[in-house]
Amino acid sequence: MQKFLVIGMGPGAPEWTLPAAIEAAASAEVLLGSEKLINAHAGNECKKMLVPLSGSIEHFLDKLETHRQNYKCAVLVTGDPGYYSLLSAVRRRFKPADFIVIPGITAFQLACARLGLSWQNYRLTSAHGKSLESMLARLSPEDGAVILTDRNHNPHTIGKYLTDSNWSNRNGWICENIGKEEEDIEKIELFNIPENKEYRLCLMILQPASAE
Amino acid sequence: MQKFLVIGMGPGAPEWTLPAAIEAAASAEVLLGSEKLINAHAGNECKKMLVPLSGSIEHFLDKLETHRQNYKCAVLVTGDPGYYSLLSAVRRRFKPADFIVIPGITAFQLACARLGLSWQNYRLTSAHGKSLESMLARLSPEDGAVILTDRNHNPHTIGKYLTDSNWSNRNGWICENIGKEEEDIEKIELFNIPENKEYRLCLMILQPASAE
Repeated sequence: MQKFLVIGMGPGAPEWTLPAAIEAAASAEVLLGSEKLINAHAGNECKKMLVPLSGSIEHFLDKLETHRQNYKCAVLVTGDPGYYSLLSAVRRRFKPADFIVIPGITAFQLACARLGLSWQNYRLTSAHGKSLESMLARLSPEDGAVILTDRNHNPHTIGKYLTDSNWSNRNGWICENIGKEEEDIEKIELFNIPENKEYRLCLMILQPASAE
Repeated sequence: MQKFLVIGMGPGAPEWTLPAAIEAAASAEVLLGSEKLINAHAGNECKKMLVPLSGSIEHFLDKLETHRQNYKCAVLVTGDPGYYSLLSAVRRRFKPADFIVIPGITAFQLACARLGLSWQNYRLTSAHGKSLESMLARLSPEDGAVILTDRNHNPHTIGKYLTDSNWSNRNGWICENIGKEEEDIEKIELFNIPENKEYRLCLMILQPASAE
């Protein structure tokens, strides 16, 4: 059985996708992933089988397991497969020898580039689908932070939690739809993050305390 | 005066360089950076001025400051400008409004992809040109680690330091020349990193303690 591919397609527009990723996707007979991504890389000849992500991740991996018996499969993901993406779930189901990973630019790398920020000393974490307490454990009040948010733990909620956890005020940015047409970067202060706005596909960047 | 560019060219072979980076480099009149990088992107028509990196960083930035008065300049760097690269020095000299950053894949992203590793929970640090003590402060014995090494703080030295700091044994990899023809990934154990080998352009990845 040939190896399947897990390919990072980057944060949005084609200019942020690696040639290695384009080539790998083109080589596959079956593309699996979000409908938008697999349609974008289906090619003109319609020879590829397209398997959209629907239902649970485990159900999706079942389909991958079936198709890889007979076809060269590629799972397309946004960003980098190794950064809050599908690779953890793939690793739980398959052996490393079963697949090949192609890395990609993650949204926060592009956001930091837009802002001219070096991210090497920033703490990277996510509030998506986990407690704010466990998020906080990965941060340090002195260092900068890159935080993936979700509907429950949105920038306002996270800002309030950090303020209540005795973080000092600092500047930061709320970055939405990075790499996409609707990209929006809003400057904020930790103590004053708008409450009522609905944020989508959103990451929050906070400067180190010393940058104040 | 037009903005200059700071462009991440990725870890080596062209397949790991973003189309946005290629396009940005092509748009510049002056390319500044390592001789190898600027020659690779000089184009065929030899119309670009090439300014190789020589001497100190400050001297290099002086040249950038001069050329940007009259020309569209691009500084080419390997990896991602925001990750242990030139961007910190650029930020100290210039205002964010003076330049545009194009992100790139860093070597550790490609190394983790090769190994099929999710790096989201790994601590990222560097032992390059700083004390092992300050490197240790960025790590946690339970978490995985990605460590950039140098000649003085090579994998053996770092392994010994972590062992002496009561880290438990764990598996890891020494990754050399990632993304280049001479790429080499060697599996190691923290307690048993070869002493005499000379490592070049090297990063070390250590699994979390719980992966044992």
